[in-house]
Amino acid sequence: MKEFFTVMDVDQVLALVEGFSRAPAEAVGLQEATGRVLAEAVLAGCDLPGFARSTVDGYAVQAASSFGASEGSPALFDVIGTVAMGEEAGVAVAPAQAARIATGGALPPGADSVVMLEHADVLDERTIEVFRSVAPGQHVIAADEDYPAGAVVAAAGRRLRPQDTGVLAAIGTARVDVHRRPRVAIISTGDEIVPVDAVPAHGQIRDVNSFTLAGLVAAAGATPVALGIVPDDFEALRAASARALAACDMVLISGGSSVGARDFTVEVISSFADSRILAHGISISPGKPTILARVLDRPFWGLPGHVASAMIVFARIVRPFLLHIGGIRDPLAQEIRLPARLSRNLASAQGRTDFVRVRVVGGEEGLWAEPVLGKSGLLNTMVKGDGVIEIGKNVEGLEAGARVEVILF
Amino acid sequence: MKEFFTVMDVDQVLALVEGFSRAPAEAVGLQEATGRVLAEAVLAGCDLPGFARSTVDGYAVQAASSFGASEGSPALFDVIGTVAMGEEAGVAVAPAQAARIATGGALPPGADSVVMLEHADVLDERTIEVFRSVAPGQHVIAADEDYPAGAVVAAAGRRLRPQDTGVLAAIGTARVDVHRRPRVAIISTGDEIVPVDAVPAHGQIRDVNSFTLAGLVAAAGATPVALGIVPDDFEALRAASARALAACDMVLISGGSSVGARDFTVEVISSFADSRILAHGISISPGKPTILARVLDRPFWGLPGHVASAMIVFARIVRPFLLHIGGIRDPLAQEIRLPARLSRNLASAQGRTDFVRVRVVGGEEGLWAEPVLGKSGLLNTMVKGDGVIEIGKNVEGLEAGARVEVILF
Repeated sequence: MKEFFTVMDVDQVLALVEGFSRAPAEAVGLQEATGRVLAEAVLAGCDLPGFARSTVDGYAVQAASSFGASEGSPALFDVIGTVAMGEEAGVAVAPAQAARIATGGALPPGADSVVMLEHADVLDERTIEVFRSVAPGQHVIAADEDYPAGAVVAAAGRRLRPQDTGVLAAIGTARVDVHRRPRVAIISTGDEIVPVDAVPAHGQIRDVNSFTLAGLVAAAGATPVALGIVPDDFEALRAASARALAACDMVLISGGSSVGARDFTVEVISSFADSRILAHGISISPGKPTILARVLDRPFWGLPGHVASAMIVFARIVRPFLLHIGGIRDPLAQEIRLPARLSRNLASAQGRTDFVRVRVVGGEEGLWAEPVLGKSGLLNTMVKGDGVIEIGKNVEGLEAGARVEVILF
Repeated sequence: MKEFFTVMDVDQVLALVEGFSRAPAEAVGLQEATGRVLAEAVLAGCDLPGFARSTVDGYAVQAASSFGASEGSPALFDVIGTVAMGEEAGVAVAPAQAARIATGGALPPGADSVVMLEHADVLDERTIEVFRSVAPGQHVIAADEDYPAGAVVAAAGRRLRPQDTGVLAAIGTARVDVHRRPRVAIISTGDEIVPVDAVPAHGQIRDVNSFTLAGLVAAAGATPVALGIVPDDFEALRAASARALAACDMVLISGGSSVGARDFTVEVISSFADSRILAHGISISPGKPTILARVLDRPFWGLPGHVASAMIVFARIVRPFLLHIGGIRDPLAQEIRLPARLSRNLASAQGRTDFVRVRVVGGEEGLWAEPVLGKSGLLNTMVKGDGVIEIGKNVEGLEAGARVEVILF
């Protein structure tokens, strides 16, 4: 039943990301689109803004009529009317004529530029004096200047930010094809684990991982499906895993980092016909006992039982897989890392990637990463910390003042 | 009807944050708590983890029995049993005795430390040889080491991260008091604005701001309430504002940055009995025509019509007000700013705070902020950009290579 013990590097594991399938597409209304991942590129069906628009409050004119205008020698213009917002211009502008126009108004025929309100004096109802010249196109957005027809306004595989959704609105995309949110099954294992509303007996602890992993899954844009607590028992774990595989795109089992429990997870994985252990151990600390398998084309993870270890493995390794399944095209580039400097020397073992919890504090010369002291099994180190820094496997340690990057969580 | 034209600095406006009330508390189940803001501090009702726990797989012993043990001179221990996970220890450990224990197991009476599996050889079913000594407390988390009873595990006014929710689970908090999510009314004004599913006539554009602002509001942890498009008309805008004030904790009116439309917003605000204009213009670019009023104790904003300007005003100025109403105790410290260096010289006017859209690119010596060129009224500059940098009001400009901080969005 047991397979070879295959300990992999972080990079080797991350190279497996592309081997899994993306969640299928579904159409959603644009008011639900922000935060979702586009399944197909969206092209502009027509020019945007679609007409030449003024960027200021002022007077639409032919620029040539203003050439040479100055405080000492202003140019005179006949005011022939006003451009009503949102309406076809009712006036055409000839040389030495001007039409009142507000920010966002459509340039009337004949006009090629706009004189700002501040650069004109009103002589009477029909006449203004302009004392600064404008160039053709000045204070105007051309009809196709934002996006020409056919331009890609949003690429496939991008998570829509508020401004991306705004552009989709501008081109009239009332519904949009996005990847379905991946569903992620979360199973906590361990004979010592009891539900949050139970009173633990001596030796028992409440289920922390289900809540923490659910929060991380949701923050990655996916839907957590908490399947509860399963005892360290082959049949129970297999039944829960089968339910998870039937309903979800990814399975996270956490707990069971002790040797015997880990064997259960491997046995359960191997009991599914279409399964393969990809990594049995990752050369990271904390998080070494992590298991990654492919079961029915889904990533199936055995995460450490300590929530701090599970969080670090999630942030650095599981999350890119989840982003990929959710449709993100460049999942390894999606992490925000905050540049900082290390506040003190840190030792590290060669041959494995070490993660150290840190607090980020402002100081002279920018941000500093202060290691949070305490045993790795404590919850409070994750609460006190703002994130972790990564010490590469070929690095023996870092000196105070070294430049580091904080993976926030 | 008109009040004095009160242009304020960014800092003057932000100093008004504390003058508004926070949203009231409501109880939610812990599975919905991540991302919400705690209304009251939560204290540990008992010690955590509540019993001395092993942090490794190994043997629970009295440390003194291992003193002096080495490869050359191992210490012998009688193995008297196994600690079952989640159960009261059935054995007590005397000198030179050991009990098998897995990671997370409860230390049995008598034991004060754990020898790692790797540091012992099994001689027979009842005997091990330990070849490395342990200190008292080694590989053990004490019963109150994570949180002693009475300790604050989560402070009021903090947005719960996944790990915070995990700790609340650990202490048995199945329901938690959080601030109600602020409801934010969003109104787009402008005679030229048509809905996303309409085909704009010449001079019309679709409503971009409702979608973009809704996304920003949601990302700040609040609930957007889009009230649609209102023409530039006093009665229509007053009716929409009355509906907004009846249902929401904050009102965002965007559009109407032209002089006449802005007057409407001011007139509408002044038409409510309990109202006061706090800022009529902010010395920032873009975003100068922003209006902030207090109406019925709610912040009531008139935002610029250009979506790019509205986004910048939201990110830098509106958002802290929204976080405050949502219960965040230190809203001005909640913004992640990414340190980077400027890729080229930038001019800036003194006396106002300038915001410049930038793309963040990796390079030698870390991250670089590359200004995104293009007129401020374009949508594509916000899509191409990763955020903005701020040039202070007393700064005349920045040179290439200057250290800057990017406000991401």
